[in-house]
Amino acid sequence: MKLEGLSLIGHGCAEPKGSPTRAVNPATGENLEPAYYWADAADVDRAARLAWEAFRQFRLWPAAERARLLRRIAELIEATAPEIQQRAHLETALPPPRLRAETARTCHQLRLFATLIEQGWCWDARIDHADPTRQPLPKPDVRSHLIPLGPVAVFSSSNFPLAFSVAGGDTASALAAGCTVLVKAHQNHMGTSEIVGRLIQQAVRECNAPEGTFALLFGRGSEIGQALVRHPLVKAVGFTGSRQGGRALMDAAAARREPIPVYAEMGSINPVFLLPGALRQNAETIAAGLHASLTLGVGQFCTCPGLVLAPTGPDTDRFLAALQQRMENTPPGVMLTAELCAAFHAGVRRCLQIPGVQRLTSARAESDPAGTRAAATLLTTTAEVFLAHESLMEEVFGPSTLVILCRDFAQMLAVAESLEGQLTATLHATPEELIEHRDLVRALELKVGRLIFNGFPTGVEVCHAMVHGGPYPATSDGRSTSVGTRAILRFLRPVCYQNFPDAALPETLQEANPLGLFRIVDGQPTGPADRSSASR
Amino acid sequence: MKLEGLSLIGHGCAEPKGSPTRAVNPATGENLEPAYYWADAADVDRAARLAWEAFRQFRLWPAAERARLLRRIAELIEATAPEIQQRAHLETALPPPRLRAETARTCHQLRLFATLIEQGWCWDARIDHADPTRQPLPKPDVRSHLIPLGPVAVFSSSNFPLAFSVAGGDTASALAAGCTVLVKAHQNHMGTSEIVGRLIQQAVRECNAPEGTFALLFGRGSEIGQALVRHPLVKAVGFTGSRQGGRALMDAAAARREPIPVYAEMGSINPVFLLPGALRQNAETIAAGLHASLTLGVGQFCTCPGLVLAPTGPDTDRFLAALQQRMENTPPGVMLTAELCAAFHAGVRRCLQIPGVQRLTSARAESDPAGTRAAATLLTTTAEVFLAHESLMEEVFGPSTLVILCRDFAQMLAVAESLEGQLTATLHATPEELIEHRDLVRALELKVGRLIFNGFPTGVEVCHAMVHGGPYPATSDGRSTSVGTRAILRFLRPVCYQNFPDAALPETLQEANPLGLFRIVDGQPTGPADRSSASR
Repeated sequence: MKLEGLSLIGHGCAEPKGSPTRAVNPATGENLEPAYYWADAADVDRAARLAWEAFRQFRLWPAAERARLLRRIAELIEATAPEIQQRAHLETALPPPRLRAETARTCHQLRLFATLIEQGWCWDARIDHADPTRQPLPKPDVRSHLIPLGPVAVFSSSNFPLAFSVAGGDTASALAAGCTVLVKAHQNHMGTSEIVGRLIQQAVRECNAPEGTFALLFGRGSEIGQALVRHPLVKAVGFTGSRQGGRALMDAAAARREPIPVYAEMGSINPVFLLPGALRQNAETIAAGLHASLTLGVGQFCTCPGLVLAPTGPDTDRFLAALQQRMENTPPGVMLTAELCAAFHAGVRRCLQIPGVQRLTSARAESDPAGTRAAATLLTTTAEVFLAHESLMEEVFGPSTLVILCRDFAQMLAVAESLEGQLTATLHATPEELIEHRDLVRALELKVGRLIFNGFPTGVEVCHAMVHGGPYPATSDGRSTSVGTRAILRFLRPVCYQNFPDAALPETLQEANPLGLFRIVDGQPTGPADRSSASR
Repeated sequence: MKLEGLSLIGHGCAEPKGSPTRAVNPATGENLEPAYYWADAADVDRAARLAWEAFRQFRLWPAAERARLLRRIAELIEATAPEIQQRAHLETALPPPRLRAETARTCHQLRLFATLIEQGWCWDARIDHADPTRQPLPKPDVRSHLIPLGPVAVFSSSNFPLAFSVAGGDTASALAAGCTVLVKAHQNHMGTSEIVGRLIQQAVRECNAPEGTFALLFGRGSEIGQALVRHPLVKAVGFTGSRQGGRALMDAAAARREPIPVYAEMGSINPVFLLPGALRQNAETIAAGLHASLTLGVGQFCTCPGLVLAPTGPDTDRFLAALQQRMENTPPGVMLTAELCAAFHAGVRRCLQIPGVQRLTSARAESDPAGTRAAATLLTTTAEVFLAHESLMEEVFGPSTLVILCRDFAQMLAVAESLEGQLTATLHATPEELIEHRDLVRALELKVGRLIFNGFPTGVEVCHAMVHGGPYPATSDGRSTSVGTRAILRFLRPVCYQNFPDAALPETLQEANPLGLFRIVDGQPTGPADRSSASR
């Protein structure tokens, strides 16, 4: 595919304007062709108007038709996978196996949402039948289901050039919901974004979706990002990135004349709690697993385990020695950008400035042509120091972790209680310890979106029960998840029909249940074959 | 019950501080005993801390126990109904039959949420089973359900002293969710609030609920209301009231270090569309129904039909004549407060200042000892005038409606398209017209929470499918409803367990399904008796 360096609006491209920018190969520091032109406010406005017009039709499409579009996007991505991955590797330095896995995940997400909307239980269809004989007033017939919010602005992440980017989870769930989508491409992988964007454009054409169903905009977050969030025709926002970036979008959305929901996933430090029984049995295995999790993707995951809590003692000493050795033996990895790498080093230095924080790994000097290489870094301190320094709770994005040595379980619990909102918390424990220390689980339930037992937080399974969310500041909205089928709920709202004639109702709510949906009928969960539904 | 005039915190009362205030009888303007003392920031802080401590226990109560508390509150309200209604009548001038109906509704709501949480499908329990053989990586066991957010601040409404106040829908749904509740009493019905608050306090004691499960605070919205919304231990807000008041809470919540959700129901003008076929057949019946709806409770409902769209012509003339006659024959009603009544008259005057707006009812002078009497008021204008004056879209809270005469259907559709977010829209049409003018239904779906066919918007049925919500500015959050069982979702968020041993899981998610819940198992809606659930 020939890359043009232009934003994609409707079936065409935006005009080139201003001075262009090139993506950078983080492994070499070299510029990559072609040059990319930023969109401007007029482009955003045109794309938003098209998206609104398209939304009015697209939301009425049968779910099966929207599913067809999602599957077609997946097919086109698979057919173009080598080209996408090659470009993504140049732009991100992520290794080919990772990019292959991410391609598979992206296509799986698209197909999972396709199946979800065909099954249709996600529409939360509810029917309360009338009772004309009720006293003192007759009971009306009331039916409701969920409908899409409108055009959604999606902000691509830097660390998932495919699965959380142009055709990623936000786009898949928004299109599945019946929303149209305006993607702001991430400037670190513009070529990858353009390839995937053109494939979506092709799928939109092939499936005869309305022209404004999808747009891809290149530009700065502080400019076209803000313009997108402030545009009156944009009705929701999906974002994966930094806390600062996410909060800026939240504040802009809340200050609108019509405030809109922002679903920002802003990362966290993902504490790992090591209980004595598990350490006694598995100190080395846990060290190996933790090392793999925290160096995966050069630590550039929102679920990277950046904090470990362990009791002082010989088992923890064994664990630390094993972890230290593995980290020393890990060659430095290439981070996504020189800026991220500089921020990583600054973050490590910030921790080390706090008295009582020690570095267990050596600071190695290596050849680093592009200023992007980060060495796996192991820090430790005590619970007292951690509790006294709030800044140690800040995420250090990259391959490092801070091990907090706790005098006793009470101190470990105190650290848990002190934490701010997190995407995940992990417990390594024997099953008996997990029951015995239920108070730790309960404290963590109030802090996180996901609890992991004897595993590691990286590798977020895309399924129905997954929660990739968590209380602020892990996300903008702890009521939501950006991974798994619950993600579609972010872009839906209920609408209710009272005493409507059956023929004028949406098919989801018609008495005969022509779509064969699972529904809540008179307060009872009711499958299409259930008597309570068929008997009326 | 002897009223004390003090906020209720824990099992006791706040200290009297500052100079007290008395409620006013809106029918006579007389002060009512006793004097009420405002809570201060220290009271809010104490109540919030107690609520947080209570939450940590209360959220873990079995649903059946929380259901018992809700039912006990309903029983105590029923046992005290005459006293509650007598006081409410003195404070609001709402007629005894209305207050009896509102008592019944309040108790119905409490019991509906009790049954809902016992059935438990509202917890959205989801199970994705592990697949250790999956390639390239084993699939983990992932389970999730919804847990409560934390202490909820509930702002009582002025117009529903029972059903949207101390033990109203927000309190019932928050307690059902497992949240603890801090109610800000409305200053217009402080005695009613105190009686109901003491009954909840009694139920909390009798059911051995934690002491901070409930608090009732007297004070000004701009003071203790803001203090509640800004308190770090308050995690969500329910509000029914004015747009200005709701927006102030939204802005305060969004500006917190940890922003929290605000569910503000801020009212709307609830347009009614009259199509020619329905008018031809039923001009007089529609006029009778509309008159009853818009004068019900002296027009003081968020669902009061404040806007009517009708085609010009003889059938509309008949409709207008019938409506005018009924409104002229309606004796002025006593509004809830002199302030609301003054705002109503100012709102009517504001409309009449616009050239082309006419008043069809006479402005009658009547005895009005307390400045609270409002006469039913019928205004008309043309679609051109309406479309040219945005201020005509502002709610005039009270017994008035504005009839917009439309030249043709296209103009009616143009008015529909111009509307901001509404709680409801109503269509009077023949079934054939409803199908023929599907574009009107579709335009309205994007504007409202509820569509009513050949009925009237007042009388919001409390059931599973009800949506009492709608896009901003009807509410702060169009994804929510404040009436019906979906209201519980406002106070819940998902939490996920990965590879947890069965015994360490909450009962909702245990494999054997000990609570007999409906759940989503491996992507399939699954009842407790379904094979797909039992086979594992």
